Amino acid sequence: MDESRFERGSSILDAIDGQGGQAVIDSLQDIAPELGRWIVEFAFGDVYANQTLDARQRELVTLGSLVTQGGTEPQLEVHIAAALHVGLSRAEVVQAILQTSPYVGFPRVINAVNVARTVFQRHS
Amino acid sequence: MDESRFERGSSILDAIDGQGGQAVIDSLQDIAPELGRWIVEFAFGDVYANQTLDARQRELVTLGSLVTQGGTEPQLEVHIAAALHVGLSRAEVVQAILQTSPYVGFPRVINAVNVARTVFQRHS
Amino acid sequence: MDESRFERGSSILDAIDGQGGQAVIDSLQDIAPELGRWIVEFAFGDVYANQTLDARQRELVTLGSLVTQGGTEPQLEVHIAAALHVGLSRAEVVQAILQTSPYVGFPRVINAVNVARTVFQRHS
Amino acid sequence: MDESRFERGSSILDAIDGQGGQAVIDSLQDIAPELGRWIVEFAFGDVYANQTLDARQRELVTLGSLVTQGGTEPQLEVHIAAALHVGLSRAEVVQAILQTSPYVGFPRVINAVNVARTVFQRHS
Amino acid sequence: MDESRFERGSSILDAIDGQGGQAVIDSLQDIAPELGRWIVEFAFGDVYANQTLDARQRELVTLGSLVTQGGTEPQLEVHIAAALHVGLSRAEVVQAILQTSPYVGFPRVINAVNVARTVFQRHS
Amino acid sequence: MDESRFERGSSILDAIDGQGGQAVIDSLQDIAPELGRWIVEFAFGDVYANQTLDARQRELVTLGSLVTQGGTEPQLEVHIAAALHVGLSRAEVVQAILQTSPYVGFPRVINAVNVARTVFQRHS
Repeated sequence: MDESRFERGSSILDAIDGQGGQAVIDSLQDIAPELGRWIVEFAFGDVYANQTLDARQRELVTLGSLVTQGGTEPQLEVHIAAALHVGLSRAEVVQAILQTSPYVGFPRVINAVNVARTVFQRHS
Repeated sequence: MDESRFERGSSILDAIDGQGGQAVIDSLQDIAPELGRWIVEFAFGDVYANQTLDARQRELVTLGSLVTQGGTEPQLEVHIAAALHVGLSRAEVVQAILQTSPYVGFPRVINAVNVARTVFQRHS
Repeated sequence: MDESRFERGSSILDAIDGQGGQAVIDSLQDIAPELGRWIVEFAFGDVYANQTLDARQRELVTLGSLVTQGGTEPQLEVHIAAALHVGLSRAEVVQAILQTSPYVGFPRVINAVNVARTVFQRHS
Repeated sequence: MDESRFERGSSILDAIDGQGGQAVIDSLQDIAPELGRWIVEFAFGDVYANQTLDARQRELVTLGSLVTQGGTEPQLEVHIAAALHVGLSRAEVVQAILQTSPYVGFPRVINAVNVARTVFQRHS
Repeated sequence: MDESRFERGSSILDAIDGQGGQAVIDSLQDIAPELGRWIVEFAFGDVYANQTLDARQRELVTLGSLVTQGGTEPQLEVHIAAALHVGLSRAEVVQAILQTSPYVGFPRVINAVNVARTVFQRHS
Repeated sequence: MDESRFERGSSILDAIDGQGGQAVIDSLQDIAPELGRWIVEFAFGDVYANQTLDARQRELVTLGSLVTQGGTEPQLEVHIAAALHVGLSRAEVVQAILQTSPYVGFPRVINAVNVARTVFQRHS
């Protein structure tokens, strides 16, 4: 294992997702521990580590991606919380979701704002 | 037709997409003119008109959405040009595309960076 | 707000979806009220308002779209009820779902007939 | 091989797709002949053979499905021609495509109307 | 009905899916009995009946397909059980799911390993 | 950069994809060099490096994934060539593609066998 990538990834994961990200990694330990490691090392240690875009910009792209893909409600939940955690406001998160309306249509967007409501209520 | 929505939409479309957006609208006149009108009125006159997110943030979400959806190369071309037009750098556009790697995998990302290369070359 | 589009959309929404559509709009008031307005104005006030296709034909297209997209079970529920509401029979709804089998495969179709069963039972 | 299913399917295929369908089947002979046979037997001999929906209704569902799925331009081309062949007008085909706008967004719809234009021009 | 295709399909369905497959067929009897028949006849009587690939190879392809499609958790459950039933080990099933990571990203993969955990626990 | 992961990945990439994989990596150098590095390090150095499944099994999963995703013709081309390169026969590749028919429908399958024909002709 490449300690430095893992450590860099862990620290970026914490900075971005807070507890939500680590909970996902932990939940994978019993069934596919390398999957958790890859998420830390590759997603956070490699992709997020580049500083051309800041964390808020990265979460805007990620919200656009997850809303569009569909069937990713658990991941959307983590990343809506992450978006708030890195400093996007609730209004900005809702607008990011709504921004996809012309590109993927209303069903995906309705499902995503319903996830946002759940996350917002939990953080009240 | 609601003149004010259409006018507001047209002016936002110009501000964001430059000539590329209007070319799409024009290309639809012969076959489905209402589709062009809806894009102007709904996408730009309604969705983009909200100012909670600025144009650069909206293009980051849109890139995340279009890369993820796949099969949207012509639209990706318009929005990569739009992203540059509203002030994102080439490096930021590339990073926005790469940011989707952990969420949609490499095939969509490779296809999108190939579209970006084409747009960048045309704007050189 | 364009009162006439909104009023036209509301009245088409009622004619097509009955109570189910309005319930969706209402459910969005707390988190993204403009999303509910767009659905009324754009989807129903613009798209459905064209009379080249009648309501039954539009619901056949919509069922084909929602079954295919997947992850749209709540919307499929609304539109299966809408299909019955505008006069398609249960047998026609089931056949519309089955018609997508050669194009999207059995998993999407099985999931959709299970939604249809739920809607049919509620309307018994 | 079940001759009766194959014959029933072939005759429905001809009735619906005209020459376009048979051309697809023929094109598969060299690489995967059973795929052509399955399309004839299963899609047309089984699915389309049920008469609860007529050919025009089935093509409306199919257009909704193919527009939504994306990346299916060749099949959309065949089925837009089929829709005209069974008696839907060009205006109805365009409206069927536009009807998916609220459900899948504009990129898929723009791509599909561009396919429709090509088919319409060829049939002029 | 073509008895021989149906019988061949039923016997392959039993050999591959064990009880899980027949339970799916039975569950469709009330709402769309022909759908159950098509799955037996077409999926198993036609597609799986070819012996160029063995059952384990076919389940590897099927896992790749279902993980990628998303929104197919019930079908993934049936086919993870089927994969074990035809002799793939738990470790091989997990690796097959993980193999899709570079091609569809982590959200689909996380959702699929969570389905695998449920199936493994039920079979303990 | 982690030399050992990169070297391990490069050598697995060569063993699996032959020249096709390296050509993809090279083509990304000008626009997004880290993307090429991630494919080598993560896809091949991490994912493929696990030996629970052999190269032929991994390509079966990959074909199932790429056929299903759609809009991935360039990647399908690379992996059909890779499947042949690691020892799957043409008949097995065709059957792997056909195996997805019940799960994703005929359009994706037709498009994929057309890609297979192109790859087979080039390797004749």
